[in-house]
Amino acid sequence: MSAGWFRRRFLPGGLLPAPGTPRPRASPVPYRRPRFLRGSGSGPGTADASRRPDARPVRSPARGRSLPWNAGYAEIINAEKSEFNEDQAACGKLCIRRCEFGAEEDQEWVTLCPEEFLMGHYWALFDGHGGPAAAILAANTLHSCLRRQLEAVVEGMVATQPPMHLSGRCICPSDPQFVEEKGIRAEDLVIGALESAFQECDEVIGRELEASGQVGGCTALVAVSLQGKLYVANAGDSRAILVRRDEVRPLSSEFTPETERQRIQQLAFVYPELLAGEFTRLEFPRRLKGDDLGQKVLFRDHHMTGWSYKCVEKSDLKYPLIHGQGRQARLLGTLAVSRGLGDHQLRVLDTDIQLKPFLLSVPQVTVLDVDQLELQEEDVVVMATDGLWDVLSNEQVARLVRSFLPGNREDPHRFSELAQMLIHSTQGKDDSLTGERQVSYDDVSVFVIPLHSQGQGSSGH
Amino acid sequence: MSAGWFRRRFLPGGLLPAPGTPRPRASPVPYRRPRFLRGSGSGPGTADASRRPDARPVRSPARGRSLPWNAGYAEIINAEKSEFNEDQAACGKLCIRRCEFGAEEDQEWVTLCPEEFLMGHYWALFDGHGGPAAAILAANTLHSCLRRQLEAVVEGMVATQPPMHLSGRCICPSDPQFVEEKGIRAEDLVIGALESAFQECDEVIGRELEASGQVGGCTALVAVSLQGKLYVANAGDSRAILVRRDEVRPLSSEFTPETERQRIQQLAFVYPELLAGEFTRLEFPRRLKGDDLGQKVLFRDHHMTGWSYKCVEKSDLKYPLIHGQGRQARLLGTLAVSRGLGDHQLRVLDTDIQLKPFLLSVPQVTVLDVDQLELQEEDVVVMATDGLWDVLSNEQVARLVRSFLPGNREDPHRFSELAQMLIHSTQGKDDSLTGERQVSYDDVSVFVIPLHSQGQGSSGH
Repeated sequence: MSAGWFRRRFLPGGLLPAPGTPRPRASPVPYRRPRFLRGSGSGPGTADASRRPDARPVRSPARGRSLPWNAGYAEIINAEKSEFNEDQAACGKLCIRRCEFGAEEDQEWVTLCPEEFLMGHYWALFDGHGGPAAAILAANTLHSCLRRQLEAVVEGMVATQPPMHLSGRCICPSDPQFVEEKGIRAEDLVIGALESAFQECDEVIGRELEASGQVGGCTALVAVSLQGKLYVANAGDSRAILVRRDEVRPLSSEFTPETERQRIQQLAFVYPELLAGEFTRLEFPRRLKGDDLGQKVLFRDHHMTGWSYKCVEKSDLKYPLIHGQGRQARLLGTLAVSRGLGDHQLRVLDTDIQLKPFLLSVPQVTVLDVDQLELQEEDVVVMATDGLWDVLSNEQVARLVRSFLPGNREDPHRFSELAQMLIHSTQGKDDSLTGERQVSYDDVSVFVIPLHSQGQGSSGH
Repeated sequence: MSAGWFRRRFLPGGLLPAPGTPRPRASPVPYRRPRFLRGSGSGPGTADASRRPDARPVRSPARGRSLPWNAGYAEIINAEKSEFNEDQAACGKLCIRRCEFGAEEDQEWVTLCPEEFLMGHYWALFDGHGGPAAAILAANTLHSCLRRQLEAVVEGMVATQPPMHLSGRCICPSDPQFVEEKGIRAEDLVIGALESAFQECDEVIGRELEASGQVGGCTALVAVSLQGKLYVANAGDSRAILVRRDEVRPLSSEFTPETERQRIQQLAFVYPELLAGEFTRLEFPRRLKGDDLGQKVLFRDHHMTGWSYKCVEKSDLKYPLIHGQGRQARLLGTLAVSRGLGDHQLRVLDTDIQLKPFLLSVPQVTVLDVDQLELQEEDVVVMATDGLWDVLSNEQVARLVRSFLPGNREDPHRFSELAQMLIHSTQGKDDSLTGERQVSYDDVSVFVIPLHSQGQGSSGH
């Protein structure tokens, strides 16, 4: 966990529109020292791995703390790959003001009393690469972008059905029918707002990094609880899952050079100049060499999900656009993810070949209709960066959740303890629970979000 | 059913590689007059709707017959939208020779005795538009393309794991490991062959239509039973489903301007010249008009799955790239499908704007592991053109299948009867079975494929 992380404020209401706006009643902000931090000096803004008596040279559960917010519990661990933690997080209440529409020129924001806010909850994990700069910017910025995007469409969100025109004036009598036939629902506006917010945040990061001479990028996984639904937006290789007594449901999918192979190859097919003659667009089981020339080898191009054979030509010996498999797959030999924020300056080492054209900042959004679930008190969403999922499967995480929560019903901090325990189990501890010793050498961040508090009433408006 | 349809031969073994090659024993080729054809003159090559006493002016079940083949049963009906049926079909045994590899220059085909063929089954439905020419060409060509593509990789298909090099010579000692790590299986070669065959067939159709001064395109839905698996390749809006006693499983998904909106909008974003300034790439709930100028209206662009609002500009008033919803959605105001074969010459009426750049000939392929199913005698795959699915849901078709087959166990022609009955029920007959009167005004083609005969042994090699 970086200094930047501690410096950011995670007060409930921290995502409110502007100073001076009436805020909803703030929840208490308890600080609890995480159990695995045995050092004595860890307080907000002061945590430092060097003080920790149990620091280890390669990886250590340095600087972890529970996030002081009552609707989600996070643990973050720095694997000390970099001086500052490349994992960053943010969470808070999301208060969306309603815009009163009049004539275009005299539209003004009307501050309503707190009860009339559209109120939601926001959790976000950012896994940085090339330094923590982009992740820190994203953690400080994305929620504001999202609030702005939501406020721009909130009028449509609170209507039974989004109106064709935002002012509500029907120009054509069958406008509502057109909207209905297209099946456009309020949740589509939230999805659209999330998509736009990620793109806006990406632009902000590009400008800010350039202005400050910094570099880097990050993945982004966001959960938003709003109007009885949980929206999970993902750009990168973090993951969110729903864990219930009898169900484990993925709420996101990963975007890596491997999972987005066809999109990336297609782009290189359309714009071959992006490869500057240095890479081959085709996929082979391994990098080809001189001996392969003239042989028929397995290959895949952008239009293929299956495999075929081709006769190897000289141009096939170039370095592959996507190389390696699984966790080792790299885009242009450089990057392990294909969506995220930042990376505007990222180039292949010692070349002018840019990665940004191949990266998407737009997330995939899934919607969980929380109000339709018959919620149990121990239904949770687990969000985590790839450091967790590299060593624990969805099912293993679900087993840990189910083995921990029922025995700790009286503990008011049990969701926070669970997040800690999940991180513990990536550090080669608690292997009695997972059955084998699994160790993550990456930064790890985990949110555990109890769904019971997210149902109707708590997140409606 | 067109004259072209009757002229084509559907003899078992009709898809064999070449005359003179030893053929597997042919199954008998019974001709059965379909029950709903009350006319007397319908024999192969002679069916003519004008002779039918029950012909109706708008649509009529003209010229239908059961496909004379024992591993799948088809019914085709001409809605008389056009003089010739735009629906075409093909089926037969697929015999794949093995290529013996020596030095590149002296490779030669070795004719093996029939038992050493890799033997499969092939069924295909083609739904033409702009005339039957493309569909007829596809029905006459695609199986040859597929056989050629399969023969080019058959050595890899029959190996435990496809070799990195088709000659089988490992150049790098860890070649098998690379193939294994990529998870490349024999079935990926069949998928690749299907993808390549569709593209090859598309090129053949383009050349043939141009040479003969004809036009048109068609969708293509193909099922191939091979080595204990059923491959379903789909490019267009036909559909295949698996119906079992307690399961209905879609084996394909439809490709229309609506389902492929993002791909199509993305292409127009990359190549705006494809729209020649005449169309807008953006999607709106309805076509915009002058009154909408300056208003904020619902819209979607290529990167969005959700919706947002934008201020209407003049360029937004152009005709939308994709317009209408559901069955009415049209690409460039012209075409209701976004994948298929042909259409090389198709242009927007009175313009030079081509549709072909937006169309994909490559199919989506799904694989059903038939050997892993505990097959019941009444498990079938139903393949049909959109004429059927426009009026019957998957579940309605499954109900019809389940209500028909068990009561007709002794009837050797029951699968053929079932295909007829399914077509009947799109003609407003048998509404006692579907519960309501549903009528299709489109051509309708149906294959019913009993899976029991497709398991191991019958389709292995």
